[in-house]
Amino acid sequence: RIRRISITDRLLRHPGRLSMVYFGALIIIVTGLLLLPISTSDIIFTNFPIAFFTAVSALSTCGIPVVNTGEYWSMFGQVVVLFSIQFGGLGVMTFASMVALGVSRRLKVSQRMLTANELGTTKLSEVKGVLTVVLGTSIIAEVLTFVLLLPDLFRVNHGNMGRTLWQALFYAVSAYNNTGFTPDATGLHVNRWGVGLPILISAFIGTLGFPVVLNLVQCARRRLSPKRWTLHTKLTLVTTAVLVATSLAWFLLVEWSNTGLFPADDPGMKMRRAMSAAVMPRSAGFDISWVPEVTNETKVFMSILMFIGAGSSSTAGGIRVTTFAVILLICRAAFTGHRDVTVFRRRIPRRIQMTAVSVTTACFALVMVGAMMLMFTTGCAFVDAVFEACSAFSLGGYSVGVASAGNPASLFILSAEMIVGRLGPLTIAYSISRPMAPEPIRYPQENIIVG
Amino acid sequence: RIRRISITDRLLRHPGRLSMVYFGALIIIVTGLLLLPISTSDIIFTNFPIAFFTAVSALSTCGIPVVNTGEYWSMFGQVVVLFSIQFGGLGVMTFASMVALGVSRRLKVSQRMLTANELGTTKLSEVKGVLTVVLGTSIIAEVLTFVLLLPDLFRVNHGNMGRTLWQALFYAVSAYNNTGFTPDATGLHVNRWGVGLPILISAFIGTLGFPVVLNLVQCARRRLSPKRWTLHTKLTLVTTAVLVATSLAWFLLVEWSNTGLFPADDPGMKMRRAMSAAVMPRSAGFDISWVPEVTNETKVFMSILMFIGAGSSSTAGGIRVTTFAVILLICRAAFTGHRDVTVFRRRIPRRIQMTAVSVTTACFALVMVGAMMLMFTTGCAFVDAVFEACSAFSLGGYSVGVASAGNPASLFILSAEMIVGRLGPLTIAYSISRPMAPEPIRYPQENIIVG
Ligand SMILES: [K+]
Ligand SMILES: [K+]
Repeated sequence: RIRRISITDRLLRHPGRLSMVYFGALIIIVTGLLLLPISTSDIIFTNFPIAFFTAVSALSTCGIPVVNTGEYWSMFGQVVVLFSIQFGGLGVMTFASMVALGVSRRLKVSQRMLTANELGTTKLSEVKGVLTVVLGTSIIAEVLTFVLLLPDLFRVNHGNMGRTLWQALFYAVSAYNNTGFTPDATGLHVNRWGVGLPILISAFIGTLGFPVVLNLVQCARRRLSPKRWTLHTKLTLVTTAVLVATSLAWFLLVEWSNTGLFPADDPGMKMRRAMSAAVMPRSAGFDISWVPEVTNETKVFMSILMFIGAGSSSTAGGIRVTTFAVILLICRAAFTGHRDVTVFRRRIPRRIQMTAVSVTTACFALVMVGAMMLMFTTGCAFVDAVFEACSAFSLGGYSVGVASAGNPASLFILSAEMIVGRLGPLTIAYSISRPMAPEPIRYPQENIIVG
Repeated sequence: RIRRISITDRLLRHPGRLSMVYFGALIIIVTGLLLLPISTSDIIFTNFPIAFFTAVSALSTCGIPVVNTGEYWSMFGQVVVLFSIQFGGLGVMTFASMVALGVSRRLKVSQRMLTANELGTTKLSEVKGVLTVVLGTSIIAEVLTFVLLLPDLFRVNHGNMGRTLWQALFYAVSAYNNTGFTPDATGLHVNRWGVGLPILISAFIGTLGFPVVLNLVQCARRRLSPKRWTLHTKLTLVTTAVLVATSLAWFLLVEWSNTGLFPADDPGMKMRRAMSAAVMPRSAGFDISWVPEVTNETKVFMSILMFIGAGSSSTAGGIRVTTFAVILLICRAAFTGHRDVTVFRRRIPRRIQMTAVSVTTACFALVMVGAMMLMFTTGCAFVDAVFEACSAFSLGGYSVGVASAGNPASLFILSAEMIVGRLGPLTIAYSISRPMAPEPIRYPQENIIVG
């Protein structure tokens, strides 16, 4: 009994370090497997940069492809990619939950109860419990998507059952874990609702993040009104809804007559494509064929969306919608002359505000450095460099073609962005949430002039 | 006695509104004067967009030219521009000081003494006093620059005394007020130290901001050690030094072999040009001929520098170096697990932190919206749009040629950026510094997950 608690405690003491070891080990193993001739269709040794990039892209659930997944990799290679996506997605959800759990364990009992409740982990005081729920939720979501995809994929593949099963599995895993790899060389069949809609919904639920989904399920089961949702759930849902509505409006207004993006002269079809384009960029990155066709203005808009990203503790990346919301709430409080940052009749703690500011600043600096390095190494336009850096950092999975197999330096830059995008905000959030010793010296305040 | 205090109080009650009225009235008057045929060399009626843009550019001390100042405008027109620069510069320094003063008046006596001392306005409890000191400082700085410029300008103009006096006056006013207009059609003689150095020093002092200059002068007069400088002075000087050193290194490393920027194959000459390029972009914007020649990477770097801008209450713009420093200090505190944001053994008040975050966020949004609108109206590249929007917002005065007389929409977009760049951060800072009523309801805290 004592022994078990001590292992748990040791695991929980350094979740940041633990997640680095987990992802580091997986990157080495997967790169090694993808380097083997058995992983490719042509039975050749893959270049190291391509194998490494694909391993990082899959494990970080980013999904930017450097080669055509369905054509270049053999069935063995595709299975390796699929496992990488699954372990990458499970890994980040588990570690994020463990960080939250680790924080709650260290707080005082009264606060701890509150936090545990907020995270929807009331009865999960151990890692095993977290793992079970994360795994269970993933399996349920993926099996549901898998089943829903079967009928229409069966038709697409002209009755080839083996192919249908494999593609349904790949899409199901890829969608819930928000990775944009497609097993089909022709890309995603977004025009067919039977394929597009289950993927869209699964990816969308994946972007909300584990704590939100769990809280929603628990509240629904106990028949609690939306007023009883946690602040985190409310903030995530409202911000996500605003972002999706804005994107939808943007794509319909700005890109309506862009034939590269909306080929058919059919309003219904345009609506479906715009909906897909509005939900996907923040996370999934499926159906990338149209991305290089958008206007430069849309590239900038999408870069901002991708930078904001999706929900905390989700497999999608970015600075997270709650971080973005907190920054906006700080501005609102400041402009209206308030000192307390409040929303939904709750006060946002000071520590959370500092985390939001520093995550945003650090990530912005990271994306800018990455974009500059891409400009130096590939000579691409600033707008493309920003797009590619945002996509890699926020694990969006879209690409305008800056990174290519012919330029290893660009692949390594994007790999670095993906790794930091995967581990960075989590680690920052963790390092700030460490128990704080009371300040040994409290210096006097002095005013300065800003603005 | 009672009457005088009541006028002062009324003036101090709404410095934000007062500065809007002041700049609004001046923009109307100056635009009207520049529209007249007497203002142009060719005695023609100027187009409204050109006159409006030039008036805003001069009054905001931005200095982006849309026509060649020395060729297009007559002597009368140039005098109007010169007066605009002087009144624009004086206006912002006065209003910024009044905002600070107004804030200090409202605080409790003990805090008030401290604030007044920090601002270097110990004995200036009235608007008249502030005006006197601002005016006095400006006159001293401008007369000094004027005298220092005379000998070398006399040589440049081949002994033409009238021309020399006029150019020296124009450069002296333009430099201290950090406006990049040049009276000479051939541009600034940056290669001659006799012209370049006084302008560089005057512009640099102008970027520090009125409170810093005053504090330095007072400390020097009382022979106080640098340790006794105010926190505001220390933070401004250190951040400015780091930014200038970084720019210098950047220009020497990245642009060393760019013949467009450094034409001569002479290291000393390259050094002088790099020094000028390192100091100017954040503020003055003289010598713009080389700007379109820089690489895209340098344009991005300069955009960031311009966005950060110069000192508070200075004629230069941007979010101000102290705002930038506070953001970095919040990050440092967060990463090292501290709750107090401290620097130089002083604690940065909570209100200042909120102001810094909201000024930065609002200004970033403004620049992005401006850049997007420039892309829509002119079809220019993203990097050029960002550069131009940053330059206009932060009153930098450089241009890569996005705005042109042929495209009125682009001129109005940049004018809007300049006006908001001039009044925005000040107004935001003021609205936040308003007296805060104690929160009527204090909501309970609730944790959310960010990052
Ligand atoms: K993705
Ligand atoms: K300027």
